[in-house]
Amino acid sequence: MTLKLSMRGETPPFRAMDVLADAARLQAAGADVVHMEVGEPALGAPRAALEALRAATAAGEKLGYTSGLGTAALRDAIAKLYQRRHGLDLDPGRVVVTAGSSAAFAMVFLALFEAGGRVGLADPGYPAYRNIMSALSLQAVRIATGPDTHFQPTPALIAAVEAEGGALDGLLVASPANPTGAMLDRAALSALIEDGRAARGGRGRVLIVDEIYHGLTWGLPAVSALELDDDVIVVNSFSKYWGMTGWRIGWMVVPEPLVRPMQNLAQNMFICAPHPSQVAAIGALSDAGEAEVVAELAAYRENRSAILATLTALGFRDVAPADGAFYAYATLPEGFDDSTTFCRRLLQEHHVAATPGLDFDPVRGGRTVRFSYAQSPERIIEGCRRLTAMVEALRGAA
Amino acid sequence: MTLKLSMRGETPPFRAMDVLADAARLQAAGADVVHMEVGEPALGAPRAALEALRAATAAGEKLGYTSGLGTAALRDAIAKLYQRRHGLDLDPGRVVVTAGSSAAFAMVFLALFEAGGRVGLADPGYPAYRNIMSALSLQAVRIATGPDTHFQPTPALIAAVEAEGGALDGLLVASPANPTGAMLDRAALSALIEDGRAARGGRGRVLIVDEIYHGLTWGLPAVSALELDDDVIVVNSFSKYWGMTGWRIGWMVVPEPLVRPMQNLAQNMFICAPHPSQVAAIGALSDAGEAEVVAELAAYRENRSAILATLTALGFRDVAPADGAFYAYATLPEGFDDSTTFCRRLLQEHHVAATPGLDFDPVRGGRTVRFSYAQSPERIIEGCRRLTAMVEALRGAA
Repeated sequence: MTLKLSMRGETPPFRAMDVLADAARLQAAGADVVHMEVGEPALGAPRAALEALRAATAAGEKLGYTSGLGTAALRDAIAKLYQRRHGLDLDPGRVVVTAGSSAAFAMVFLALFEAGGRVGLADPGYPAYRNIMSALSLQAVRIATGPDTHFQPTPALIAAVEAEGGALDGLLVASPANPTGAMLDRAALSALIEDGRAARGGRGRVLIVDEIYHGLTWGLPAVSALELDDDVIVVNSFSKYWGMTGWRIGWMVVPEPLVRPMQNLAQNMFICAPHPSQVAAIGALSDAGEAEVVAELAAYRENRSAILATLTALGFRDVAPADGAFYAYATLPEGFDDSTTFCRRLLQEHHVAATPGLDFDPVRGGRTVRFSYAQSPERIIEGCRRLTAMVEALRGAA
Repeated sequence: MTLKLSMRGETPPFRAMDVLADAARLQAAGADVVHMEVGEPALGAPRAALEALRAATAAGEKLGYTSGLGTAALRDAIAKLYQRRHGLDLDPGRVVVTAGSSAAFAMVFLALFEAGGRVGLADPGYPAYRNIMSALSLQAVRIATGPDTHFQPTPALIAAVEAEGGALDGLLVASPANPTGAMLDRAALSALIEDGRAARGGRGRVLIVDEIYHGLTWGLPAVSALELDDDVIVVNSFSKYWGMTGWRIGWMVVPEPLVRPMQNLAQNMFICAPHPSQVAAIGALSDAGEAEVVAELAAYRENRSAILATLTALGFRDVAPADGAFYAYATLPEGFDDSTTFCRRLLQEHHVAATPGLDFDPVRGGRTVRFSYAQSPERIIEGCRRLTAMVEALRGAA
């Protein structure tokens, strides 16, 4: 008997993870690899997070099941973050602690859309969005974005895809977005909210806003959708700003009537978010944790300037906004056609790992590349030097 | 605009968790509550697990993304467990580390069944099985079991439900099972495997075996389905034997061709299991961790004897086998009709928390109760004393 994979189980791999594996093999063989392939801060969790966990276990605190919604202490601390960042008085009862943003997306998709539901999302975008949707029998409706709409969906772009394939039941946006770093300012976000309210003959279109890169913004601070509307779903995580990728801890804020259904779903699907990570997250949110994270932001700014300057100097095109997050995304310079080959050579010959764009844009990504700059400036500057050397050498050979 | 819950998002709550919340409120008000409501070992993670995590963070080990399949070190350590327990030489490449058994079930259900697929499972049984299935658009097909088949499905019972509603695409069994503690011995497990091979005109019926209570067995040690067949899916977890409920760390063993699809699914749906928990789990599997766990088993044996003797003495009927796990499950004595009322009085008036059977058996559970005995013998004996007092008082009043 051979077990047969279901159609919905056929999930494409992240190319970024395959690049990571190739890079790890090169590194194991002694190569000095510059890692610009995954969106993972080099420093990891704040010391304040580790210390909170250490103190709890030293005190004999039992790390068992928590409520499916998370511990009261963490939900309170997260609500206070909205006060600090956005001046919002958020009811902690609306905060649902999740096993990373991944679990939040799965819960939102299950709770708010029937099988077959149509959910719009930007191309380029984070590939797991559409892969989770597809596993959960949703139709991910791609909205092609580019420099003309700041790489974000707009009511006009939504109207165009709806005219072609029917109304959207939901819209998922990210601000700042991966891989483009593009943000939705207050006006752009308000326009999407207004447009959503009137959609589907007044029944409305569910708006889900991924805010996991909040705090990592290089111009104006990010606007939270919660500043504009209480009927949105906002998803966030400790992975990026707090560097706690491997801890699988995040949250969402939902309208009050959805709290109890989300609790039931969480209990059954996940039981609860990992308790040790919930304890550590409270440490990350402390003043000491915040101070550690803020101290790192200057390095990201320096990295951002270095990579954007390099891409421009080398003739990369349609360089995405990079308003926030720690990614640079662009189309290869004239004369370079295939980003998968480009990234392979960059890794094999110059030991710089970057991600070919097909992860983020199955249609146009064959010519785009994403560089993650969540490493130390020394490493990113070295990566830029090697990238420049490769492009110049290939140009000289052409 | 009001967000409308989807049909598939309408997941019933665990009654056990509501009892837990009620018990917590009583306790906060000063009551001395005996906890027999949730399947959570009182002691928590082994010290060896905490120490492994402490050592890793003290050494500055970064707890970032791991492979979607888990770290090589943990997968190796888990494979060795099958050598120690079952004399099996298991390829670590077939081990998929998951965020608890919950994540494993979600991945298996998505990877192996199309929407609408029919999966059989025992009544009484663990409620999250059917709730996850329902959220993922599967039909959970209940197979009513009782003392005549040792509370486990058999080929004859399967044939009966198939005659009624059509072929099953899969079968999910647990050994030892929650809430009955019933185990499948080698012959019973072999019969299910043989029956499954021939099913669906030779295409076979997927067999998923939940082995999370392995190690907690009170007569013969449990047989792993992997001793009998490589084409089964075996799910396990660090929650029960190792007491790491809140750590959300478990695993599954899958046939080799399913490893890569599971990796893709894991990367997209979960990214990876929590890295701190993966590190701690290696400590739990160490000789020191094993010694700590084994030292606790005598307490469970004592608890089991106490509660089973109490239930028998009080006239509880159809007392389930309790071959393994830490649950006693039985039908109320003659004269008691409603287990929800019974449990409410037991908690409110005698401060013993137990779970009404409707969680585990929506049809017959109105008269059954589950007692979890994963606490210290002092507490369980106190719980038995109070249970006896209540039943005798009510009888005296009748």
